[in-house]
Amino acid sequence: MGIIVQKFGGTSVADPQKIHNVAKAVIREKENGNDVVVVVSAMGHTTDYLIKLAKEVTNNPDSREMDMLLSTGEQVSIALLSMAIQSNGYKALSMNGQQVGIITECIHSKARIVDIKTEKLNKYLREGNIIVVAGFQGVTPEGEITTLGRGGSDTSAVAIAAALNAERCDIYTDVEGVYATDPRIVPNIKKADIISYEEMLELARVGANVLHPRSVETAKQFNVPLRVRSSFKLDNLGTLIIGVENMEIYKPVAGVAADSSQVRILLSNLPDIPGTAAKLFTALADNNISVDMIIQSLANNGTNSIAFTVDSDDLDTALKILKEQKGTVQAGEILTDKDISKVSIVGAGMVDRPGIAADMFKALADNNINIKMISTSEIKISCLVEKQNANKAIKALCKKFDLESENIAVVKGDLPEV
Amino acid sequence: MGIIVQKFGGTSVADPQKIHNVAKAVIREKENGNDVVVVVSAMGHTTDYLIKLAKEVTNNPDSREMDMLLSTGEQVSIALLSMAIQSNGYKALSMNGQQVGIITECIHSKARIVDIKTEKLNKYLREGNIIVVAGFQGVTPEGEITTLGRGGSDTSAVAIAAALNAERCDIYTDVEGVYATDPRIVPNIKKADIISYEEMLELARVGANVLHPRSVETAKQFNVPLRVRSSFKLDNLGTLIIGVENMEIYKPVAGVAADSSQVRILLSNLPDIPGTAAKLFTALADNNISVDMIIQSLANNGTNSIAFTVDSDDLDTALKILKEQKGTVQAGEILTDKDISKVSIVGAGMVDRPGIAADMFKALADNNINIKMISTSEIKISCLVEKQNANKAIKALCKKFDLESENIAVVKGDLPEV
Repeated sequence: MGIIVQKFGGTSVADPQKIHNVAKAVIREKENGNDVVVVVSAMGHTTDYLIKLAKEVTNNPDSREMDMLLSTGEQVSIALLSMAIQSNGYKALSMNGQQVGIITECIHSKARIVDIKTEKLNKYLREGNIIVVAGFQGVTPEGEITTLGRGGSDTSAVAIAAALNAERCDIYTDVEGVYATDPRIVPNIKKADIISYEEMLELARVGANVLHPRSVETAKQFNVPLRVRSSFKLDNLGTLIIGVENMEIYKPVAGVAADSSQVRILLSNLPDIPGTAAKLFTALADNNISVDMIIQSLANNGTNSIAFTVDSDDLDTALKILKEQKGTVQAGEILTDKDISKVSIVGAGMVDRPGIAADMFKALADNNINIKMISTSEIKISCLVEKQNANKAIKALCKKFDLESENIAVVKGDLPEV
Repeated sequence: MGIIVQKFGGTSVADPQKIHNVAKAVIREKENGNDVVVVVSAMGHTTDYLIKLAKEVTNNPDSREMDMLLSTGEQVSIALLSMAIQSNGYKALSMNGQQVGIITECIHSKARIVDIKTEKLNKYLREGNIIVVAGFQGVTPEGEITTLGRGGSDTSAVAIAAALNAERCDIYTDVEGVYATDPRIVPNIKKADIISYEEMLELARVGANVLHPRSVETAKQFNVPLRVRSSFKLDNLGTLIIGVENMEIYKPVAGVAADSSQVRILLSNLPDIPGTAAKLFTALADNNISVDMIIQSLANNGTNSIAFTVDSDDLDTALKILKEQKGTVQAGEILTDKDISKVSIVGAGMVDRPGIAADMFKALADNNINIKMISTSEIKISCLVEKQNANKAIKALCKKFDLESENIAVVKGDLPEV
């Protein structure tokens, strides 16, 4: 008998009827002979409502108090789900982050988990309980309440699975698994039955919003098998995510993803002096701005130009920092381009197949899609294209790499938040 | 510089604007040079909403899970109130029951406080913080979340004041203080400037719903001066409640109260054998039924009859128990009377004035109010009257004992929940 950790998001527990549906999925796993720990998010729009309340009190709420406030959302869900499970005649009890001992750093609103205590969890499991744990929250060694930031509940579930040495962590969502691309763009896209952590990470980073990268990274680190599956179709096994070393076969291209949330910044006429790039990117990093694609090229006149992309939310801050740095690094011009989408193909098998990049560029060219910038990694090739061409590019790439199913997939609901 | 503990109920923090009003009252006390600890209840109807949610999940929610659920209500309020105080430029932080260390018994939904840790409270006060504490909740030594039941937040505030050796505990409500009777019945009733714990207890027990008896009992036990005052009129000092031994003058009758929530049960033809009453009332007590007025009388035929009152919510259970006991104690008949109100006069000075009881009976007789049952204590005389006569009786007694003010008091809002 193994331990299964299940995670249900906010839409899955949005009302009492849905909470009973979740209870059914939980009990089903218990009836399969497993010990079950369930991690849940706050109900539906609870978190948004609490944030709105705080904003009505002050424009600039303290992050410690925000964590105190927001952590109540999950505490409501765990109590209600325990009641629903109990009403079916099963032993259940809820535990908040403090009670479990989900120990985090003391960084409010985006703490990282440093340890998970397993004594109480194991004790309650031995006593035959289904344990319902509040996701998204933790506690510092000093007893301060923290939250984990975006993707927090997924990360809680994976970290608990790792700590308990669970057989598997099942992430229930309102999609049926991981698709090779966004089914809203390519409705007849194939669902992956199995995919590697690495591929999932690349897909997640470039905009396939099924799982937050943090949770996948944690699963990879502790080798926890993940299953992304539907809350509504319990018989559907969804997509299993495991280490690439455990996969017997994989396709050269597992998926296609697009990210339209970035902008490109171009710095021209930089002097070709060592340390210029370091200065620039250190200044950005010091201000917590993540930089994605970076390309540096040497011009004929002996100067450099550096192009890179940042999240569009960070554009104003990035420009301010770059202008401050302009004197130091003697940049000639700062140009921005907001009309970009990053389209990527991802696949663990890519490394062995030299022709994949060429196939990608050809598919785009055949569809009259201009490539503004290219970057590659071992399992990913990304191209910047004009925003208006993003969907066309995705469709072309799915066709090219045989990612469409013969039957049109039916996708229920919106893609879930992470 | 002393410590002042302030308590604000759910109506005082019902929305962001009201939370800012509370922040003003808190800051005012801090500006007076005091260290301030604020205890708050859940916002407005939050608790009712959470109970409704639970009932939608199951008819019979587990009390442990209910405590997990309900304790979130206060946690929302403390976070928002801290933010409101901080937005005025003052240092504040919120603490839930677990963080403070409000240690209780492990009895869910009606736990009693057994200890309050003061290390963190004192540390944060020394650092200049206003501390906002969640009322109504505690934690067992094992880390289980408990709630304190009715009157819980008042009790939290008084217990914290006792633990911190505070100068005073101010209970802010939407009335201006303690009145000699319900101002909804006698609109020109006098507000007491000062009243003893004992008088307050008797007034509270018989239906003057300003403070829950538990909180007054705790204040009495630890000799914490209490002030009941208005959230809306901060200049009004309300009513000070202290030990009778500290009062220099008191009136023979401090207040008049009525309680229409009881029913009378009469057992006739009981054999005059020692132990009969003990058996009956032990059986009731074993089922957690509180019995109030008890009168036993010997009839001519050598049998007893016993009359007593219980809360009308407990009537069905009480009758069931009495019927089971009927064989044992050979009661001839069980009669119930639901048409009763208990009207009481309360006053610490009563004991020195032998004519007070006679004055009460005369006032009722002059108004054609029949007395069904009488009971007395050192500082209280209660009479059962027909329900329809309760308000008439209160008015007559207020007039008789000079409890009406010359000026008509203006009372804002409803009487608060306890």
